This record gives sequence, structure tokens and C-alpha cells, in this order.
Amino acid sequence: MHNNKSVVRKILDEVKSAGRDALTAPEGKLVCDAYGITVPQETVANSSDQAEKAAAQMGFPVVMKIVSPDILHKTEAGGVIVGVKSAQEAADAYNKIIANAKAYKADAQIVGVQVQQMIKGGQEVIIGAVTDPSFGKLVAFGLGGVLVEVLKDITFRLAPASQEDALSMLDGIKAADMLKGVRGSDPVNRQALANLIVQVSNLVTDFPEISELDLNPVFASKDSAIAADVRIVVDFSAKKPRYRPPEDQVLASMNRIMQPKSVAVIGASNEAGKIGNSVMKNLINGGYKGHIYPIHPSADEIMGHKAFKSVKDIPSEIDTAVFAIPAKFVAGALIECGEKKIAGAVLIPSGFAETGNHELQEELVAIGQKYNIRMMGPNIYGFYYTPANLCATFCTAYDVKGSVALSSQSGGIGMAIIGFSRSAKMGVSAIVGLGNKSDIDEDDLLIFFEQDPNTKVIAQHCEDLKDGRAFAEVARRVSKKKPVIVLKAGRTSAGAKAASSHTGALAGNDKIYEDVFQQIGVIRARSLRDMLDFARGVPILPTPKGENVVIITGAGGSGVLLSDACVDNKLSLMPMPDDLDKAFRKFIPPFGAAGNPVDITGGEPPITYKNTVLLGLSDPRIHALILGYWHTIVTPPMVFAKIMVEARDEMRVKGIDKPIVASLAGDVEVEEAAQYLYEHGIPAYAYSTEIPVAVLGAKYQWARGAGLI
Amino acid sequence: MHNNKSVVRKILDEVKSAGRDALTAPEGKLVCDAYGITVPQETVANSSDQAEKAAAQMGFPVVMKIVSPDILHKTEAGGVIVGVKSAQEAADAYNKIIANAKAYKADAQIVGVQVQQMIKGGQEVIIGAVTDPSFGKLVAFGLGGVLVEVLKDITFRLAPASQEDALSMLDGIKAADMLKGVRGSDPVNRQALANLIVQVSNLVTDFPEISELDLNPVFASKDSAIAADVRIVVDFSAKKPRYRPPEDQVLASMNRIMQPKSVAVIGASNEAGKIGNSVMKNLINGGYKGHIYPIHPSADEIMGHKAFKSVKDIPSEIDTAVFAIPAKFVAGALIECGEKKIAGAVLIPSGFAETGNHELQEELVAIGQKYNIRMMGPNIYGFYYTPANLCATFCTAYDVKGSVALSSQSGGIGMAIIGFSRSAKMGVSAIVGLGNKSDIDEDDLLIFFEQDPNTKVIAQHCEDLKDGRAFAEVARRVSKKKPVIVLKAGRTSAGAKAASSHTGALAGNDKIYEDVFQQIGVIRARSLRDMLDFARGVPILPTPKGENVVIITGAGGSGVLLSDACVDNKLSLMPMPDDLDKAFRKFIPPFGAAGNPVDITGGEPPITYKNTVLLGLSDPRIHALILGYWHTIVTPPMVFAKIMVEARDEMRVKGIDKPIVASLAGDVEVEEAAQYLYEHGIPAYAYSTEIPVAVLGAKYQWARGAGLI
Repeated sequence: MHNNKSVVRKILDEVKSAGRDALTAPEGKLVCDAYGITVPQETVANSSDQAEKAAAQMGFPVVMKIVSPDILHKTEAGGVIVGVKSAQEAADAYNKIIANAKAYKADAQIVGVQVQQMIKGGQEVIIGAVTDPSFGKLVAFGLGGVLVEVLKDITFRLAPASQEDALSMLDGIKAADMLKGVRGSDPVNRQALANLIVQVSNLVTDFPEISELDLNPVFASKDSAIAADVRIVVDFSAKKPRYRPPEDQVLASMNRIMQPKSVAVIGASNEAGKIGNSVMKNLINGGYKGHIYPIHPSADEIMGHKAFKSVKDIPSEIDTAVFAIPAKFVAGALIECGEKKIAGAVLIPSGFAETGNHELQEELVAIGQKYNIRMMGPNIYGFYYTPANLCATFCTAYDVKGSVALSSQSGGIGMAIIGFSRSAKMGVSAIVGLGNKSDIDEDDLLIFFEQDPNTKVIAQHCEDLKDGRAFAEVARRVSKKKPVIVLKAGRTSAGAKAASSHTGALAGNDKIYEDVFQQIGVIRARSLRDMLDFARGVPILPTPKGENVVIITGAGGSGVLLSDACVDNKLSLMPMPDDLDKAFRKFIPPFGAAGNPVDITGGEPPITYKNTVLLGLSDPRIHALILGYWHTIVTPPMVFAKIMVEARDEMRVKGIDKPIVASLAGDVEVEEAAQYLYEHGIPAYAYSTEIPVAVLGAKYQWARGAGLI
Repeated sequence: MHNNKSVVRKILDEVKSAGRDALTAPEGKLVCDAYGITVPQETVANSSDQAEKAAAQMGFPVVMKIVSPDILHKTEAGGVIVGVKSAQEAADAYNKIIANAKAYKADAQIVGVQVQQMIKGGQEVIIGAVTDPSFGKLVAFGLGGVLVEVLKDITFRLAPASQEDALSMLDGIKAADMLKGVRGSDPVNRQALANLIVQVSNLVTDFPEISELDLNPVFASKDSAIAADVRIVVDFSAKKPRYRPPEDQVLASMNRIMQPKSVAVIGASNEAGKIGNSVMKNLINGGYKGHIYPIHPSADEIMGHKAFKSVKDIPSEIDTAVFAIPAKFVAGALIECGEKKIAGAVLIPSGFAETGNHELQEELVAIGQKYNIRMMGPNIYGFYYTPANLCATFCTAYDVKGSVALSSQSGGIGMAIIGFSRSAKMGVSAIVGLGNKSDIDEDDLLIFFEQDPNTKVIAQHCEDLKDGRAFAEVARRVSKKKPVIVLKAGRTSAGAKAASSHTGALAGNDKIYEDVFQQIGVIRARSLRDMLDFARGVPILPTPKGENVVIITGAGGSGVLLSDACVDNKLSLMPMPDDLDKAFRKFIPPFGAAGNPVDITGGEPPITYKNTVLLGLSDPRIHALILGYWHTIVTPPMVFAKIMVEARDEMRVKGIDKPIVASLAGDVEVEEAAQYLYEHGIPAYAYSTEIPVAVLGAKYQWARGAGLI
């Protein structure tokens, strides 16, 4: 569709020069026309006579509305009369509207009364656009009416929205079935409605000065989608764009910082208990193979490494400088790092924005930008990058290598990540503290992890996204390649309030996060444990090739709970084809239930588990398996675990690899079996039917978002 | 309100003798009048002339509707015309309705055309009553309209419903705000609406033959609630009441079964691997002090105990018989138990209804009823009752004594309960398998545990409630004294389908379970882990005395997630009073955030945790504490744990005991600290912010349901 930008430009220029912050209805109509947004026939009358004639010409009924730049809320002003059915009524309505408007605001400039074709029938919907402080332009969609307002049933997408995004919005509201035709009403024209959404999103993208736009109501029928009213609010104050280095530069810096050839420790110390001592210890004991340069005002040597007074005294190139000095000395040392052309500063010290000292933090930001040195923190525990055996942190060393990269905005949550990872033997590639996020942000990490061959899955805890738009742009691309899991804290109003007092950041409207994450393919964790379980399980699962999930269980009771969990996690239980049902029945007792779940019944020997699982893996109609194990003497936990890994391996040899998760019901020995299964690529959980299914659900959510199924 | 039952009785008798299954509109109106259910003025016209006059008399507009016992769906038949505005329109409408009705069903008996005062304005709502196969009569409430239908926004209560129940329904729909007046509309008259709900629930309770009733729409305004249309469907086929012994008899039997002086093991065996051998071993090794009588066709002695050929040969009284023989021998042995007047049979064997052998199970039921012997199972693992050191099961012995009584319908879930309990050191009083529930049911267990001094909390897994009404009646009473936690599996349609193939039971509409559980004060667990965590944590928490919750955290990031979890679990974060804020600030660094959460900041020494927690416990405005611990060298995990228990104990001595839960973020040492805290009465979880808050939420939910806060 060709959009007539110059028409819109001209109108906006006029509004700007008139010092107005909203468009009149006729201006709104012209803007809609320029972008192919269908509106009803209309004209502006300046007398009751004109109103009569115009109405007669376009056919009754008509709607009549005041046109005044000084009256924005027309209904409140008594400036709207609907259902005008005859010429006489049109004349009367004209007079009444003018009188009401004058009563409402005596000095209002009155342009006239708009006479508009009244669109009837179909479903009333609302399409709008808003400007979010973090995500920028968003397009919104919902049904019209008070009830929808009460239920807050509205959905958002980043603008510009694609046709596919727009169509997903029609399905994205709770009342989506209303659009499909209920009680004999016609379904709406989905294409027409989607076009309107796309065009609104294009309009606000092309003209950022449009801060708010509402098409309310839009009448959606089986033939068309017509916007009966348009409201456009503008804001011409220019926003300062956020400083952001180009992506290749981000990547070059992040590569040096995360996999440094050499690390300087500013504030290194021989004294146990000091942060600078812990950092040195972790670098050395962690097995880091690069050069370590302690920086100390007086010492000659620290923990066996020659010490320097300043980074500038070090003869060779430095990639990463870890700061372990009090806040007040950081700026000075940072300038030296800049002069030394160090790529990154890991700012462990606290005492900046989080304590209210915003000036000191802004000073660091200015230095960083001046010298092109990227800063992690301040107010962080540092970071781990296990492929380089790098523990650039004052916490204890971490050495379970693997493919998950985790980050946290909060130090406390970082410690929980470390503890859980160690306890659950979760293999990680990196754990990064972001703290005050004066500079390095979630999107910088995404850019690095995207191309890091050691990272398969990225899991991030955050309380705010300082630049949601930048995050979304990067995450949308990265999530096509690697699952991105985000725990967005401050979901609720109480949580957001706590977040704002904790980080000084304004946590945004949670529904916007929810919808944008969905749009860009980010998996949202609802809780800390969810994030950790997803991070642990998702990378070891192969990608499913289709939606058909089958449950094979020894415990009928587990089968019921696993089925509930499938629905909760949007997994599709395959209706069992007759031939496959028969094939399963061959392996199970006559009173076992085939169908889905396949209930092999308790007390079966290992071979029954194996036969049914082999069948499930080999049949091409099945894409993923959920196993429900029941502890018995006949098939003890470790026997089950080993035979399952065997079955999976047998099929892998044949080139078949499907995701399998397991729920183990039994005495404490099932814990060892669950760990064995996990370590062999089958996420398995003792005493839980919901966690394994949630992990599989997260993998599916990713695969769908990435367009792989 | 005096209800005129005789009027209703007379009408229903007429309907019954006419062989009809629904009431006509005029009959419906008379029934409403008899129960004080306000309906509009109306009359039945038999000519267009009569219609004209009647309409003019009651005032326009009117609604006109066909009256015919043969036309139930009046709108479909073209038998309804609304908004009749004049005498002429009334005459025309009469003729049109009659014509439409004849066209719809030529041989329909036509009584006339109802002319009804048209109620306008206010909010349209629906009040109805249904008959659920498990719960019996339920009253339903929702808003009117298609959108509400699409959103399935309807709420149920057991009938009869109290005024309080009815008022809770008005708040129980998602669109509750619509009733409070939105966009300038008036709030509805809540009393009038609640009265209508109560009267509908009384009507269907008094007349069980009313199987369905709909007041749709009801116009609720600020003055009144008027039912504009009533539809009543009847079912005169008598239901056979379920066999159920009187409650004192249930209790007497359950007391003997659960705490027997003597146990017979039918099918006891010396041969390792046999179920009858495992049961003997568990009875002996579990430390049971009563008499054990093995029953065996030929052996003289089994595992040191004199064996008998039949229970009838045993000279003394027997309380409980554990069955470990094949299904086909069960009925015979059960008759002998009956003749011996044994109180209960624990039917471990499978091969009954769960394998399709319903006849065999029905045979047992008949024997049980004849001899008044209560049966647990069949198809179960047996049961544990730790106060009597009784392990009447073939699973391994369980010996961590405590105050939670658990039960499961499924054996697999029972094994998960045992494993989790042992692993998490959860103290239990009982674990009971219910299996096929041929007889002993969740409500029998509730009756026993209600008065069992060893049980403080009851947690039950079930897939169906064979007699939901009986369960509800008992649970409503018991939950006032002890928390009752239920994991209802088969929540979703897929889960319900799996449950029905697994147990042969029809899992009901989940929304009904949801609402009824709420009404009777039962805490609903959403997942297996939730049930287990609630069972473990709820009994050790003291009951809160009010709604004010305060978070005290060392990690700001945990504070944010804990706040989110408070909202998710319907906990109220207390707005911090100024004086208390100042008092907290005295103990924390200047950059710490008071308010709620109280963020004491990381790196604080133990005394800061202690001082703030002591303050939180001592201030009478605070009713519960949530602690967020952050692992540091300054305050290691076990130091934190011990000092928290100390603080709690110091306040207990002063007579102050408030619920405290804790979330521990840190390295693996926090796991030991969490266990220490749990064992000392503070439910604490490593790497999770959501579980401790959910546990506190469950305690609060119970306390509210029991009317304690």
C-alpha cells in the first residue's frame, strides 16, 4: 500500500505551527485517508441547513459531532449525537451541539459540526497506538465497550507490526472468539482488520511525533473494517536518542571483555576477606590461562603476580579491568583504563545510583563514552565465563561447564543462580551481574552470546529494560537462533513499586512486556525457579519437529496430572491413531489404557517401558514424549533411568532424536535417577508432574517463536 | 422471607401429571412470586385486542413472547418481540408471534402471547441453578450477554447459598467491577441481587425436581433486581441416594481402622518379594505395638507370628485386615472378616474396577454394606499412621512423625508423597491410599482426621469426588478447624479425559470445583509440588492475626520478586507507617530502602537482620514476615538461620508468635540453612522467591476461610 506521507507531513506541520497538541477530526480523517485507513463518509457543516443536506446526501442514520480544537473529549461536552434519522433531526442536532459546546467552553473555537455516515452492525473494536518510555511505539487492539475496559482485555505489539503480528493480535485477546462469529453473527474480515492495525503501526512509525492515536470505535464486519472515529495526539518535543555504539563495535568489545587475553585487577589485595583478594583468588584458582595484572598503589607482587601502580604502567595490552576499589576512586582509575584502551571495566563497587549517588554514576558514563570503554555494573558481583575458566568475581569459583548463559540485574538473584546451578549440576557458559546497568545491558550480552559457540541458551533476570526497543530488536533476531528466557521481575504493581525503589527504574506496564516478549520470541519465566529450570532443561532437549506430544506413564495418576500440565503449558496431546493405539496395546497389559496418555500400568517390567518408548520415538507422527515413572521393585529407579537412556541412544543411532522429559514418582532413590537422566539429556524431576512439562513447554514455545514448527 | 411452598408444590404436581419437563412462563412467574423473586408485570393475551389493552395498561415499552409448552427456545422460534412501543405495534406483534410459532411448529399447543413490562436500564445479569452429578444443586451467577458467554465468566456456589455466599458471587466474577458502576453508571443494589441468588438457591433446594433454572436476563439497577425471564426445567425421576453410614458410625470404624489394637494380614507370606511378606515386614519393622495375625492357608508361623487359616480362627477381636491376596479370593475372605466383625479391610489387591471388572468390585461393596465393614481401596498401596507406628503397606516403612495427614487416589502419586516426605523431612501423621474408592472416601478420612489430635493439616490428592456434596459438607466443617489442602487432578479437559480413562470416573467441570472449594474453605493446590510444599509448610506456621505482611530483605532483587509473589498469592503488603519506617531506618544503612519491602541491603552483619526482624515481630501492626536472605561472608547462611530462630524464640517467650517464611539466595550452603529453618518452624526455600510466599499464602487463605482473620 502506498502511503501519502507528504499529506500527513503537511498536516502535522500546520498543527505544530499552530501550537496545538491534537488533530481535529477532519485532520484525522485526512491522515487516515493518506494511510488507507478506511473511515466513514463525512463532511463539516456550518449551519443547520448544511447539516440537513449533507446528511440526506450520505443517507440516514448519521452521527453528528462538534469540531473544535479546544474540545478534545467531545462526548463529555455534549458534542456528539448518534442515530440522527431524518433531515429535521439533523437540523435540530446541529443547533443542540453548538449550544452544548458553547455551554461547555464559552470561548471554544468552533470549526463546525461534523456529519458522518453512521456505520452499523458488525463488531465494535478499538485500534490504537501509544508511546512507551522503554519500547517506543506500540500498536494496541481490543474490543470496544465498557466490559472490555473493565476486563483490561487489550493486546500490544511493537510498531511497525507485520501482517502476521496484526493477525496474532486478533487471536491475542481473551475475547478472541467474538471475532469469529458467535450466536449466528458473521465472523469479521480478518484481513481488513489486520490491514488497519498494520497501517496504524506504519503511521506512528513514520511520524514519531504522533504520541497517541485511537480509532474508536472501528466497526468490523464480514466485509470491511471502518474506523468511525479517530483521535490523534502529537508531541513535537524532540527526544534525545540514547547513546549506543554500533553493533560491530559492541561485539568487538564484548568479545574482548568476555574472553580476555589479559585481566587487570584494580584494587588487588593480599589480604584475605578483601574483595580484591577474592577476585585474585578466583581468577587464579578458577584456572584462567591469560595474564593477570594486579594493580596496587604500593605492593610489588600480589599472590605471585607482579603488581603495578596503574594500568598505564602495564607494558602489554589489557582487555578487561576488574574494579575492587571504593566508589570514590573509580572515576580516576576508569580514565586511566580509557587511556590504556582497555575494552571493558567490570565495576564491582557499590555506592552509585543504587545509593542515590546518580552524579557519580553519570560521571562514569561520560568517561566510558569518551574513551569507548564498556562498563559492566557498577554494583555487581562480576561475571563468570567458563569456556575461558574465567571467574572475574568475588564470589566462589564456578566450574560446571555447559551451554547456558545467565545474567541477573540483582546480586541476590545472581547468588541464587550460582547456588542453584551448582546444586543442580547445571552446566553454564556464563553468569553475569548487570547491577545498575550504567552501560552494558541485556542486549549487549545477547549480541555476544548470539555468536558465542559455547552458549546454546540465554537466560536473563531483569527488573527493567532501560531501552526496551534496542533489547527487542536484538532479542527478536537472537531468539530465532537460540532460546532467550527472561524473568521480568516487577510483574505486579507491588513488585514494580519495589523494583522502582530498589533500582530507581520505572518498571513498565506488564501487559506490554508480556505481549512484546511473545512477539519477539522471548520465553517468559513466571518465577525464579521457572527461569532456573528452563535454563537447565531447555538446552539439553533436541528441537521438536512438530506439535504431537504423547505421554507414556506407569502411573495413571501421573498421567492425569501430566495431561493437566500439558494444557497449562500449551502442549498438544496427540489424538492417538487407531493403528498406533493397537501397536501400543501389544506391549501393555489388557487393562492398561492406550490412547494418550498411554497407561502401561504399575508393576510392569523395564521392557514394557522400553518397548513403548521405542515405539513412541520411532513413529514419525509423534514429536515429543513425556514419561511418567512409578517406582516399583520390578523396575527400580536407576534401571528405568538407564533403560530410557539406552532407548533414546538406540534411536539416535538411527538418526531419530526427539525431546523427552520425565516425571518420577517414588521413594528418594528417584532423585539419583532424575539426576542421571538429566546428565544424559533427559530433563527429569522427582515428585513433580508440572516442572518437566513446563520445561518441554518452554522448548516448544521457543521452537514456535523461531518458526521451527 | 416466607416462601410459599404449597404454591410451587401444586404447580410442579400439575407439570408432572401432564408429563411435561418444563414450566411455562406464567407457571414460572407464579413460582417466582411464591419465593419472592421479583419479576415484571405481565399477563397473557389471547387476541391482538387483549394484547393492545394489556400493553397500554402496564405502559410502553413492552416485550411480547409466545407461551407454549411445546416451544422452549422462544427466540429461535421467532416468538419474542422486544421494544413494543404503541398499541398498534402490540397488535401487530401479537399476530406476528402467533404466525411465527405456527410456522416453527405447526402442531404446537399455543396458550397465548405473554405481554410483559419491559425493564430497562441497569446491568443485565444472569442467575441460574444447575444439578451437578457430584455436588448436586448449585446456584450460578454471571453478567448477561454474548461477550460474557465467550469469556465463560460465571461463578457457582452450593445451594442453599447464604447471603454471604451470594455477596461473594458478585465479587467472584472477573467483570465484578461492572456491578460497582463504571463510566458514571450507578452501582447495582447488591442486597437485592444477593436476595435473588439466595432465593433461587432455596427454591432448588426445597424442590430437587427442579433440575435447571434460569433467570435471564435479570435487570440489576441501583434500586432493584428484576428477573425479566424465567426458565424452569424439571426432572421427576427419583435418584437413588448413595449408601452412607451415619457419621458417628464412620468415626467409630475409622478410629478402629487407623489405630487398631490388632491387625490381620490376609495373604501373609514368608517369601521375600511377595506383597504379603512386605506388609508383614513393614508392620514389624515399623514398630507397631499391637497384635499381628498372619492369615495363611497352611503355614503355622510367619515371621515369628502364629499364623491362622482364617480370621475367624483368631480368638481375640480384630480391628483391621490388610488384604494381600489375588482379586478372585478377596470376596470370600471379606465375608469372613464381616462375620468376625472386623472394622476395616485394607484392599491392596488390584484387578477390580480399574481393569474393567466392575462386577467384582460391586460384589465387595455389597458385602461391605451387609456386614458394616469399611473398605479402603481396592487397588492401593495401603496406609501409614505414624502415631501408632503403623505401616500397613507394601512400600517401605515411613517414620518421620509429624502433623500432616496425606492421602492420594493414585498409587503413583502416593509414592511421590512418600519420596518427597522422606527427602524433605516432612513430618506426617498419615499417608493413605484411596485407589478405586469402592467405599472409604476423602470425607471419611476428613471425619477421622478432624478429631485426630496427631493431625494438624490434611492434604488430599483426588481425581474425582464420587459424592462431592458429602465431601463439601464435611470439609466445610473440618476446614474451620484444620487446613484442608486438595490437589484436584483433571483440572483441564485433557486431564479430565485422562482421569476418566484411568479411574472410570467423570471428572466434573473444573470451575465448579474451584468455586465450591473456595466456598467451603478448602485450599486448592494447583500442582503436585504445591500440595507437597503446602502440606510441609502450612502446619508449622502459626496462624496470622491480620492481613499486614512485611518483607525484610538483604537482596533488593529478591524483594521485587517476593513482592510479585505476594500479589500472585493474594497477600497484602502493609503500607509502611511513617513512625515504623523511621524505626526500621535506624537499623539499616542510609542508602537502604525502608518502606515495604524493607531493604536492609547486602553485606549487612547478622545484627541488622536480627534487629529488623525483632522490630517486625514486635510491632503489633505487622502480622507476618517474609525474609529475603542474601548469602555473604559477613552473614553466612547458618548464622542467618540460627539468628532468625533466636529472634523468633525471643519473641515467643513474650507471647508473640507470627508466621515467618524465608527465601534464601546464595551458594549451596543455603540448602542446609533452609532445612534448619524449616525444622525450627520457619518454612524456608533455597533459590526460590515464590514457594515460601505461596506457602504463606496458603496459610492466609485457610485463616480467611475459617474466619480467623
